[in-house]
Amino acid sequence: MDKHNVFREAEELQEYWNQRILGRANGNLFKVAKGIGEVDWHAHDDQDETFLLLNGELTVRLRDRDVVLEPGDLFTVPAGVEHAPVAPTEAHFLIVGPAVTSNAAGGKPAWSH
Amino acid sequence: MDKHNVFREAEELQEYWNQRILGRANGNLFKVAKGIGEVDWHAHDDQDETFLLLNGELTVRLRDRDVVLEPGDLFTVPAGVEHAPVAPTEAHFLIVGPAVTSNAAGGKPAWSH
Repeated sequence: MDKHNVFREAEELQEYWNQRILGRANGNLFKVAKGIGEVDWHAHDDQDETFLLLNGELTVRLRDRDVVLEPGDLFTVPAGVEHAPVAPTEAHFLIVGPAVTSNAAGGKPAWSH
Repeated sequence: MDKHNVFREAEELQEYWNQRILGRANGNLFKVAKGIGEVDWHAHDDQDETFLLLNGELTVRLRDRDVVLEPGDLFTVPAGVEHAPVAPTEAHFLIVGPAVTSNAAGGKPAWSH
């Protein structure tokens, strides 16, 4: 029940595409991450994944279109939908969902492991 | 599955303390609201309520302390905990939870009805 500043917490991250849990509520985790470059194509069959872009630019590639996010943009990838986030420059974002997805199954690129 | 800009959506709100639903994921709604002045003391027995301050200043009064939020601060009021948000000047915020709580039971002040 402590407060966390999403901008500062994202700036403190050391590793790309690695989610830091800030809190949990109603079965969901509130996580910050930073990204650069491309994440592998993947889908989460068990959960929707909501992105809120904090800084930079993040494109969520879907099979039928690209969704370009600017700071303040909120976007949910529904469960089961294939996606591949791409950050042309460093991007900071909040992610909301029931579990941490920054692993190989979640498309985390090998170079960031 | 459309994107929404939380800053712009909050600026478009006409009524104080009235939540606008932007989307839903994993059983939770993502809502924006603007506030000024005080909300009545209340608690939500059925849900945690997460605030992310977008602009302005919002103090979440609890019975044992005040939690002062600045832009980017994320804070969850657990289910059943009495609270009373106060905005000394106009504040814009994102709220995440399973249902809309901007009603009399949720402390919405009479003047904003």
